[in-house]
Amino acid sequence: MALIVQKFGGSSVGDADKIKHVARRVIETQAAGNQVVVVVSAMGDTTDELIDLAQSVSTDPYAAPREMDMLLTSGERISMALLAIAINSLGANSRSFTGSQAGIMTSAKHGDARIAEVTPTRIQEALDAGDIAIVAGFQGFNKDSKDITTLGRGGSDTTAVALAAALNADVCEIYSDVDGIYTADPRVIPAAHKLDAIDIESMLELAAAGAKILHIRAVEYARRHNVDLRVRSTFSTDPGTIVYSTKPAGANMEEPVVSGIATDKGQAKIMVIGIPDVPGKAAEVFTVVAEAGANIDMIVQNTPTGSDVVDAVSDIGFTLPKGDLAKVAAALEANKAKLGFRVVEVDDEIGKLSVVGAGMRTHSGVSATLFKALADASINIEMISTSEIRISVITSDVQLDDAARAVHTAFGLDSDIDAVVYAGTGR
Amino acid sequence: MALIVQKFGGSSVGDADKIKHVARRVIETQAAGNQVVVVVSAMGDTTDELIDLAQSVSTDPYAAPREMDMLLTSGERISMALLAIAINSLGANSRSFTGSQAGIMTSAKHGDARIAEVTPTRIQEALDAGDIAIVAGFQGFNKDSKDITTLGRGGSDTTAVALAAALNADVCEIYSDVDGIYTADPRVIPAAHKLDAIDIESMLELAAAGAKILHIRAVEYARRHNVDLRVRSTFSTDPGTIVYSTKPAGANMEEPVVSGIATDKGQAKIMVIGIPDVPGKAAEVFTVVAEAGANIDMIVQNTPTGSDVVDAVSDIGFTLPKGDLAKVAAALEANKAKLGFRVVEVDDEIGKLSVVGAGMRTHSGVSATLFKALADASINIEMISTSEIRISVITSDVQLDDAARAVHTAFGLDSDIDAVVYAGTGR
Repeated sequence: MALIVQKFGGSSVGDADKIKHVARRVIETQAAGNQVVVVVSAMGDTTDELIDLAQSVSTDPYAAPREMDMLLTSGERISMALLAIAINSLGANSRSFTGSQAGIMTSAKHGDARIAEVTPTRIQEALDAGDIAIVAGFQGFNKDSKDITTLGRGGSDTTAVALAAALNADVCEIYSDVDGIYTADPRVIPAAHKLDAIDIESMLELAAAGAKILHIRAVEYARRHNVDLRVRSTFSTDPGTIVYSTKPAGANMEEPVVSGIATDKGQAKIMVIGIPDVPGKAAEVFTVVAEAGANIDMIVQNTPTGSDVVDAVSDIGFTLPKGDLAKVAAALEANKAKLGFRVVEVDDEIGKLSVVGAGMRTHSGVSATLFKALADASINIEMISTSEIRISVITSDVQLDDAARAVHTAFGLDSDIDAVVYAGTGR
Repeated sequence: MALIVQKFGGSSVGDADKIKHVARRVIETQAAGNQVVVVVSAMGDTTDELIDLAQSVSTDPYAAPREMDMLLTSGERISMALLAIAINSLGANSRSFTGSQAGIMTSAKHGDARIAEVTPTRIQEALDAGDIAIVAGFQGFNKDSKDITTLGRGGSDTTAVALAAALNADVCEIYSDVDGIYTADPRVIPAAHKLDAIDIESMLELAAAGAKILHIRAVEYARRHNVDLRVRSTFSTDPGTIVYSTKPAGANMEEPVVSGIATDKGQAKIMVIGIPDVPGKAAEVFTVVAEAGANIDMIVQNTPTGSDVVDAVSDIGFTLPKGDLAKVAAALEANKAKLGFRVVEVDDEIGKLSVVGAGMRTHSGVSATLFKALADASINIEMISTSEIRISVITSDVQLDDAARAVHTAFGLDSDIDAVVYAGTGR
């Protein structure tokens, strides 16, 4: 008998009919001889409606973060109780549990708590009794204060993975309206094809590089705790994509050179031009950036060449989320005299293209293929960064989709048309 | 410094403006030098909306009573968090607590749990820190199973009284849209006047006799634990009516002969005609009634008179809630052969009038005044029952309001018009 954790997001439980559909699906999984733990998000727009309510009684409701968590956690309480009621009305037994009842202990930070410990005693008891256990995603409690907390973005996926780890589940299934992990975003590249399997490290790089289907936080948790994930659709029976943390016994150990590519239009670029080329200057620049509260991604530095080394200047460029652009540019301008640069140039019309594959560890020639494909398509590269299993380049945003298609083809990822299976209701 | 528990019902927190109004009111109470615990119900129609949702995923959601409790308790979670957010945005400090966090331990019966024990450790800590404590009404948890429970009808009033008892509060204020306890329902008797004070036993009798303003369960709890109540309006500054469990020091110990009158049109009457007048027959009848699951109120038995004592028959009549009429009548018919009666007559066009006053203990003549007033108004009495401080009579329902007005006048309860202060938005 396998133990399966299934996570259904807000769109999967958005109304009564969808809840009944999920109920049948969960019961089928149990009837096939499995123990089942279900993690649910709040129904559809519930969270937004609760935030609207809070804003109608306070101009700054997040100034009371403990109370916002108390408020927002009612959303999952409603969806999980409704799912349990639906399951019970179909003749199976289920019990719903809040994050606190499920033993999800977190740090104290309301609105963005980290999971510290999971002791799912009551979940195990429910499973032992033959019941389906329903657990509220996105929430936990602070062990010290006993206050209710929420996990922030990607919280429900993380709840599911954390429970799967604590219960030693065989697999954690993440359901949405997409039927798996694709070699690229099918809205951009119609020839993208669904992967049957991908290793967790490549998945982590894809998530970090902008693929939206799994939240990076949940992927990281799964990698750290050796949880296998399966990404699949609530509305089809397609087996989806297995994301393996533990190599399957007897599996072919040869990794694909390139598993997939990801694109990200959410980044902007800042160039600090004409900064004195003396030791420690780069550190000063990035201290100012860090104090402005921004996470930077890629960095380039153009060191000066030539004979005039006495008054040499260099340029430092980096990328960061578009939302942080204004505040970081302002912080740099405010420190212009101290840093001694000539001018700050900002560019929010860039795109990032990443090629990811565990096989890059052992295969050479990936960057050559990449750069040749981009050159053939007349696409200019503004920045480059690499990890062990990823190469990312910055292009202009208008060229990003063309670049992605060219690279997808160059790495042989295009499927013949029949292989494309895409649920297509939004990714 | 006094400790005050304030309970606000669903209509008092029905929308954002009302929540902000309650927030200001609570802050004023604290600013006047009091410690404040606030108990809230779910906003307006929230509970009905949640029940509708449950019925949209199951034809019989109450077949999963544990899950219905999980669902419905989200209503108070929303209202209490919003109230805490509103209070905090006005510059005061408050923290909200679920029934479980507030230490409300109950029996196991979902949907109608009884409070078993109250250990409000976290509430006391919040008060000691100078915070306003907001507590979810209507809910608790079963100490053994750790499951969330709801308290059923009158639950939020009972939560407030139970917390007041456990915290040794000075008073428990019950807020609604009515500004106190009246000598009668002002919709029926415009000359009814608000009482400044009433003893808890008279309040208990009035509640039992049909007065809707306080739930009998909360009044019983207050009496048993010596909690003083104050009934007042959310929307006026009128001090309302004090319901005293503990006689105020130096107070006039002479009780009013009649504090008020209550009417009840929710009862029906069953007459079991022609039942053999042998010992044990009444017990058989009421065993059948009890097995049908009905609570009966008043009972009359007409013992036969005359010479024919051998085959004597008698009639047994009793009143019960209208909603139980059909099932009890059916149960009696099903046992007709065994019970040996001639016919069952049902009457759902009756009304009950009750006259309540602690002074009845020491004053005679109350029943004479009552019966004379009814006779003068040509009102026929079908049944009579009495307690130490109450006399109730059954009349036809069409005569009930006339009867109430006549009796209100006869006991000198009519006020001159200026004394009538009635908030008037529904009682």
